[in-house]
Amino acid sequence: MGKIYVVGLGPGADMQMTMEAKAAVKQCGIIVGYTVYVDLVKEEYPDKVFLTTPMTQEVKRCQMAFEEAQKGQDVAMICSGDAGIYGMAGLMLEVGKEYPEIEVEIVPGITAANGGAAVLGAPLMHDFAVISLSDLLTPWEKIEKRVKAAAMADFVICLYNPSSRKRKDYLKKACEMMLEYKSGDTVCGTVRNIGRDGEESQIMTLSRLKDTEVDMFTTVFIGNEQTIEINGKMVTPRGYRNV
Amino acid sequence: MGKIYVVGLGPGADMQMTMEAKAAVKQCGIIVGYTVYVDLVKEEYPDKVFLTTPMTQEVKRCQMAFEEAQKGQDVAMICSGDAGIYGMAGLMLEVGKEYPEIEVEIVPGITAANGGAAVLGAPLMHDFAVISLSDLLTPWEKIEKRVKAAAMADFVICLYNPSSRKRKDYLKKACEMMLEYKSGDTVCGTVRNIGRDGEESQIMTLSRLKDTEVDMFTTVFIGNEQTIEINGKMVTPRGYRNV
Repeated sequence: MGKIYVVGLGPGADMQMTMEAKAAVKQCGIIVGYTVYVDLVKEEYPDKVFLTTPMTQEVKRCQMAFEEAQKGQDVAMICSGDAGIYGMAGLMLEVGKEYPEIEVEIVPGITAANGGAAVLGAPLMHDFAVISLSDLLTPWEKIEKRVKAAAMADFVICLYNPSSRKRKDYLKKACEMMLEYKSGDTVCGTVRNIGRDGEESQIMTLSRLKDTEVDMFTTVFIGNEQTIEINGKMVTPRGYRNV
Repeated sequence: MGKIYVVGLGPGADMQMTMEAKAAVKQCGIIVGYTVYVDLVKEEYPDKVFLTTPMTQEVKRCQMAFEEAQKGQDVAMICSGDAGIYGMAGLMLEVGKEYPEIEVEIVPGITAANGGAAVLGAPLMHDFAVISLSDLLTPWEKIEKRVKAAAMADFVICLYNPSSRKRKDYLKKACEMMLEYKSGDTVCGTVRNIGRDGEESQIMTLSRLKDTEVDMFTTVFIGNEQTIEINGKMVTPRGYRNV
């Protein structure tokens, strides 16, 4: 019986994989993943078997991994970022209910919140909330409630999936909700293509963010009351005591 | 003029460092850090200069790093977890105001939220809030407001610093607040010594968590309405659509 590793590759560059993630991919004979991520590692490992399914075939992808493990091979299910944060870890454990004899290990990775924060400076030094604006699997009312609650309690907020072709105005809507509780001067930041070619970031006020268009490759950070800009970096001081 | 890398070492084991973090530490002649973390890497790099300051001397530690960089050496300021999440990144950029000529790069790492989630299963598959219960630098009223808002909006909640010698009952207090909004049956998990010797985890209900004593090496996860236990793992399904 093989073992399954669910491996987060980090936000982009190979250098943001952990040593553990690297070792897990290396030791597995079979790599399963979404086509785009498999292409990222394919060249490096010409001797492995690669199995892919397209975007909406996630359940099938998980089943494939378990079936290969049943045949005796160690399998790496790969995804970008951290497998445990809006990634494949949950679905793998859900599908794994049908395969209780197969051991599944989750290997954590750098998610866009951590990776994007490092690009911008240090926005997540204090309590923060991570919210996806995608309403594909979540009712919009629930997202709305979370955005408002996080803004009301002065969390730093990190938004995943801030936009898509069908949801062009979602970031604007979220900003409008946050502006009920946060000042228009709140320091915000956007990071696009974290850890990849063409990585770019911007720091701006919440008022300006409201009228900024971002795409699906962008992660958005909204500061708390104390967040400031220092030498072009977005910084949330750790505490309420002066340095 | 040297460059400064602020490097998160991950939650414990060397294997949870990213390749980038490893490379940054390797290339720097000088390693600065809190005594405990410096001891973690000291053995591996006998040829480097190590500078440490104790717990409350963080500002001095940052100044030391900048002074060494001014002398022309590349410096790694190391801390555990992710430097950008309750770590040293923010303070370094704040102190860096006085040294605008020195370049500072933040190298992200695996924080306890990501690392602990992987040990428990996949609790952070949906929107989550990270809150520190330490009131050393934050008024308790602010912490209380955040715990309540996060519970009210059905976030998965990850608690850092859930306890200390002086704050033995803080987790209990936080659980009582969450129980105003979350069911006593909510699936919760605790992880101690993430990625280190003696790593241990437990899954339990929120009602039981309320009466559980944890220490300062523990990270606590409280599920959302949908979080379930599958084969001994804590899993928050990604969305509201059935698998």
